[in-house]
Amino acid sequence: MIQPGSTDAIAVLGGTGRQGRGLAQWFARAGLRVIVGSRDPVRAREAVAGWPATGPPPEVADYVAASARADVVVLAVPFVSVDPLLQELQPHFKDGTLVIDVMVPVTFAGGKIALIDVAEGSAAEHVRARLPPAVRVACAFKTVPAHLLGAGFGPLDCDEFVCGDSDEARSSASALVALLPGLRPVDVGPLSRARSIEHLTTLAIAINRRHKTHDARFRVVGL
Amino acid sequence: MIQPGSTDAIAVLGGTGRQGRGLAQWFARAGLRVIVGSRDPVRAREAVAGWPATGPPPEVADYVAASARADVVVLAVPFVSVDPLLQELQPHFKDGTLVIDVMVPVTFAGGKIALIDVAEGSAAEHVRARLPPAVRVACAFKTVPAHLLGAGFGPLDCDEFVCGDSDEARSSASALVALLPGLRPVDVGPLSRARSIEHLTTLAIAINRRHKTHDARFRVVGL
Repeated sequence: MIQPGSTDAIAVLGGTGRQGRGLAQWFARAGLRVIVGSRDPVRAREAVAGWPATGPPPEVADYVAASARADVVVLAVPFVSVDPLLQELQPHFKDGTLVIDVMVPVTFAGGKIALIDVAEGSAAEHVRARLPPAVRVACAFKTVPAHLLGAGFGPLDCDEFVCGDSDEARSSASALVALLPGLRPVDVGPLSRARSIEHLTTLAIAINRRHKTHDARFRVVGL
Repeated sequence: MIQPGSTDAIAVLGGTGRQGRGLAQWFARAGLRVIVGSRDPVRAREAVAGWPATGPPPEVADYVAASARADVVVLAVPFVSVDPLLQELQPHFKDGTLVIDVMVPVTFAGGKIALIDVAEGSAAEHVRARLPPAVRVACAFKTVPAHLLGAGFGPLDCDEFVCGDSDEARSSASALVALLPGLRPVDVGPLSRARSIEHLTTLAIAINRRHKTHDARFRVVGL
């Protein structure tokens, strides 16, 4: 399991987008070996230059190189671009790599928030169906608002729902969640729960719009 | 809008089941005029005899009579039995009646928790499609665990998600939610949000099973 101080590396693909950057920054602060995966490594190198890190300074690589070197790969790219990306990356993953899907397949067509229909049931299962069996898949970080991951925000004070295709995938993903201050992982079981988690995100967006906030997130009471 | 002290009546169909009974008891305690709708009014009369009420003592009626006399009708029956029930009741509702769907279309087939596929999208929209336009529909009380509604439990200390087919339906349902100690209504918008709420319930059940508790419920942080 990847943890602060280990030589294992975590790649964050889409690591210069808002969600990916926030996650990569927290992982670096926590002391993980972070590889920021980007289509534009020059820009990415500038971006990560000032990040505080308690472990090794964050590296930068293109998507293929980042995935090939990592033990954990976080998919923080738009859902609509994930199919060609997985096709490109698929031969490069190491056996035993854990892929963490953090995408939410939401559309805002016509001003209405809706989940995109996914034949496999959820974005996470869609990813699972496009990877070899030796690569494990978990789903996490789908409900915490991306902008709250940014520098300067205090403890997140909420729960983050985790599901995955194996006990090991779930515990590794949960351990990563627990690295972020104030974020408690809640294991909800197999990957087939991912759609319910994606619905939670939709609900958070709906609550934000209706109640004119940006910060809606969830806490499980009674646990 | 129905409120403590008004002559408007709220019928709870399935008012002797665990969820319906808990809701009916709280409404009576809060001072609403409550009609417990039951297929077995004799048994129901025995059941309600000892309920504390700050307003009129709870009445008992069969489903048709309860629905015909009520201004708000809570559907606390199993989802699988709702089609024939709505067909039976449909001609008896008063114009302007608010129907509140509290059902969760969950199946436990093969030991796996899953939502029942509903052509209309959700149980709430299924109900909406089977009622005349003059009857309004809201969805509420789907995520608070039924056994926590029972006598003796303290403040619920969580949020309850509300959606509905009109502003009025949502505010009436929200006002009812707010009658229960420690329960905060969170308006999430149109009835098309109901499926996301139903997914939340599935998630709560999954969390309960996995973490060996019965009390999982939700709080929105940042609101």
